[in-house]
Amino acid sequence: MQMDRYPSRLGDGEAQISQRKDPVVYGNTEEGPLKKEELDFYEENGYLLFDSLFTDEEVKAMQESLNETMRKEELRESNHVIKEPGSNEIRSVFEIHKEDSFFQSLSKYKRIVEIAEQLLKSQVYVMQSRINFKPGFKGKEFYWHSDFETWHVEDGMPNMRAVSCSIVLTDNYEFNGPLMLIPGSQKWYVSCPGKTQKDNFKTSLKKQESGVPDNESMTELVEEADGEIDRATGPAGSVLFFDCNTMHGSAGNISPYSRSNIFFVFNSVENQLVQPFGGQNPRPEFLANRKEIEAIEPIGNPFRKLQNS
Amino acid sequence: MQMDRYPSRLGDGEAQISQRKDPVVYGNTEEGPLKKEELDFYEENGYLLFDSLFTDEEVKAMQESLNETMRKEELRESNHVIKEPGSNEIRSVFEIHKEDSFFQSLSKYKRIVEIAEQLLKSQVYVMQSRINFKPGFKGKEFYWHSDFETWHVEDGMPNMRAVSCSIVLTDNYEFNGPLMLIPGSQKWYVSCPGKTQKDNFKTSLKKQESGVPDNESMTELVEEADGEIDRATGPAGSVLFFDCNTMHGSAGNISPYSRSNIFFVFNSVENQLVQPFGGQNPRPEFLANRKEIEAIEPIGNPFRKLQNS
Repeated sequence: MQMDRYPSRLGDGEAQISQRKDPVVYGNTEEGPLKKEELDFYEENGYLLFDSLFTDEEVKAMQESLNETMRKEELRESNHVIKEPGSNEIRSVFEIHKEDSFFQSLSKYKRIVEIAEQLLKSQVYVMQSRINFKPGFKGKEFYWHSDFETWHVEDGMPNMRAVSCSIVLTDNYEFNGPLMLIPGSQKWYVSCPGKTQKDNFKTSLKKQESGVPDNESMTELVEEADGEIDRATGPAGSVLFFDCNTMHGSAGNISPYSRSNIFFVFNSVENQLVQPFGGQNPRPEFLANRKEIEAIEPIGNPFRKLQNS
Repeated sequence: MQMDRYPSRLGDGEAQISQRKDPVVYGNTEEGPLKKEELDFYEENGYLLFDSLFTDEEVKAMQESLNETMRKEELRESNHVIKEPGSNEIRSVFEIHKEDSFFQSLSKYKRIVEIAEQLLKSQVYVMQSRINFKPGFKGKEFYWHSDFETWHVEDGMPNMRAVSCSIVLTDNYEFNGPLMLIPGSQKWYVSCPGKTQKDNFKTSLKKQESGVPDNESMTELVEEADGEIDRATGPAGSVLFFDCNTMHGSAGNISPYSRSNIFFVFNSVENQLVQPFGGQNPRPEFLANRKEIEAIEPIGNPFRKLQNS
């Protein structure tokens, strides 16, 4: 049994903030495409937003693939398809990087993989993938959370050495519920009060009840950031990389504009999942890959494949 | 029985957009403090935001009065005190302009009343007043609505000749659920599908079920505004005037920063309430004054009174 460096949900009702015990940036400028200023920004803030890592044509191709997947999944009741609370609209489709699909090629695309490899200074694999769709008018809020807290307690991720990559397929405005991030929050670990409910994942993807940070810790994090909460706004085609422990969330979306994105979690091959630290059974494979963990061999343009199909 | 120029909630399931039948700006530059550009902006957009109509000291004095009122009302179960859905936190306290209070003096303060008089080209009275408090972390969304639609159907306001004045007592950021407004929406009347539920006001102040515009109409309004949805962000002390028919709403607030404001609705003395056009009984006096409708005689500095008390 591995030592738990990041205990949480111990059921004693106590929340606690402690310092991160792992680096934020593992690599340096020689190991990938990011420049020193970019690595420094990520180290300081816990995220990095690229305004246009993809061209308009590439965005269009990704949107079409997303729509096609949504259509295919719409009528299906399946564990890896998550609906909005109180409606039948699809919120997320998981495990999109498997089988011989466009999204699989995209998940191996060197333009994004090499950034993840540089940040983590190792080869990486896709621990989780999904497409997210937040409908206009009735998109619900997603409360503050650190992904790592859940991945550690429920999936057994030992250390903070993973990065999420969100490819934004819609224009994100201040007014359609953009992802909000607390700059610098990745430097702190907020252990959460309460205990994990049995089969928590079945409800937590709609509305999180376990792993919810307390108000006092959240206030401290925001005060540490001088009261600043950043928003990932930008045109379709923006790409956000953020550390596994960066505190993030989003308000609801009452605007007419839906939001969609493609989401890959790249985990270091040196940070493979062990038994969940919360002591329960691991969550299903579609939420946290334990079997298919082969290191990615980065590939060139995945869009060529799409044109040929 | 007065003719209904703005029918809504007829129960036939049909939403409809029609043109406004009343002026937006009634007065001109000779009748008050607003300059031509300001009147033009209000006419075009349906609102006007002043960054600092009150000094820091005045804001502080108003905050203290608000806190005192909240403390006094907290333990009381009263119709005119509205709690957050699912919690005991106060969301609004109505009817703050009555009795011999600071808020009464504030509601007569010429700095704001003369603006309302100019916009409406008549004397005005306070049809509704309240303080609003949107707590941090769990402040709920308020869906899109036109105040006039409700005031017309449920309170019997005949014409669009009223203006709301919101004095903002907290810094409003992009990330703490600011009021959102659709520029130009005041020029259109969106009649809502459905019928008014009995005693609708008892639930509608927490979550609106009747008088909710349909998605198609909302999309049209936003498209008319070239996709722009404005947010009333600014420092504490900002004052927002907006037309009774301007479509507005707000997303939830998951930030640690609460939001509070003082809210007066000034109605023209020439636009007094008649029988509600929805055919039901009028809502209670604390939501829509029918008895105390004397024209305001504007007064000077209300803060002097506060210092003496």
